[in-house]
Amino acid sequence: MLKLYYSPGSCALASHITLEEAGTAYTAERVDFKNSQQTSPEYLAINPKGRVPALVTDFGILTETPAILAFIAQSMPRSKLAPLDDPFAFAQVQAFNSYLCSTVHVAHAHKMRGSRWASDESSFADMKRKVTQTMGTSFALIERDMLRGPWVMGETYTICDPYLYTLSGWLEGDGVDLATLPKVADHRKRMSERAAVRKVLTDEQS
Amino acid sequence: MLKLYYSPGSCALASHITLEEAGTAYTAERVDFKNSQQTSPEYLAINPKGRVPALVTDFGILTETPAILAFIAQSMPRSKLAPLDDPFAFAQVQAFNSYLCSTVHVAHAHKMRGSRWASDESSFADMKRKVTQTMGTSFALIERDMLRGPWVMGETYTICDPYLYTLSGWLEGDGVDLATLPKVADHRKRMSERAAVRKVLTDEQS
Repeated sequence: MLKLYYSPGSCALASHITLEEAGTAYTAERVDFKNSQQTSPEYLAINPKGRVPALVTDFGILTETPAILAFIAQSMPRSKLAPLDDPFAFAQVQAFNSYLCSTVHVAHAHKMRGSRWASDESSFADMKRKVTQTMGTSFALIERDMLRGPWVMGETYTICDPYLYTLSGWLEGDGVDLATLPKVADHRKRMSERAAVRKVLTDEQS
Repeated sequence: MLKLYYSPGSCALASHITLEEAGTAYTAERVDFKNSQQTSPEYLAINPKGRVPALVTDFGILTETPAILAFIAQSMPRSKLAPLDDPFAFAQVQAFNSYLCSTVHVAHAHKMRGSRWASDESSFADMKRKVTQTMGTSFALIERDMLRGPWVMGETYTICDPYLYTLSGWLEGDGVDLATLPKVADHRKRMSERAAVRKVLTDEQS
């Protein structure tokens, strides 16, 4: 059975929702970031990067959200969570998720995780001040050019949707006004009405 | 026919090598970063992100290295550049490439592109000073846990290899001593002997 390691409020939410959407049997185990469990020897043996998500499968352990999402879609094709028979459409899904992980998530991380890339308190404060701008610019591009609507890829729900929903959930805290992003706001509302999303949010907050 | 937009020294090298390895017909067009061609209206119409690589296909335009690499492998299955029939093995390929784009490339980018995430000169200098450490730490993890040898995924060459080769080519300039990374150094040597790599490097430098 699949086992997901997650932390509430992290990008692991995308994988958690996708497992639920796929209708597969899985367990989810919370990693206690407040007590630095992610850097404990026990957790580093699961994921040497000391991050979530990590997905334990019958074949081994997977990390990195885009890889986990595509794995769920490909190994459970009946869930129809990605266009598996069309390499170009599948690549568009991957391009979107790659943009979220390498640009959008990274922009957000500069608010609280500046020590990954700098050493001085003044740099951390400088980075933090810029997050509203960088997240706003990233999401303006998503709003204008990438989110087709009603779902990211158009009429069909895919593994792009829970990932976008996860990262758009950070906008308010990052100082970006959702009213300037009507398609993203509509997408958030639509996602929040899905049974899988409601269940996972309840489970993560319990 | 496929057309790749690239800039010498950029991560587009991974896509360029992969096109050559696939043995497909393609053209490659240089984007002149010195004259900011990447932010010209003409190029922004191709890639609104103002970055390379961008791959023009018969179906539309693709961006983001992990997506482009997987697209080449999936749309030209006879090139055998990824384990297409094994979702877990394919996910491992994707997890590796996702780590390169979202952690390793991002670490490197803080040397010259600090203005993406901060505003003050002192922050840029602080970020720049830390790049040797962040790239060193990232590659130490690759050396210890990720690069199986002789190729990234073991005995079989995949789309992970040109991407690793592209980013490991930045180590010397980032102040990381390749002598501390014997498996990465061996991988660089092995890659540099491939006909496709030699041809692409010659083409990009001509």
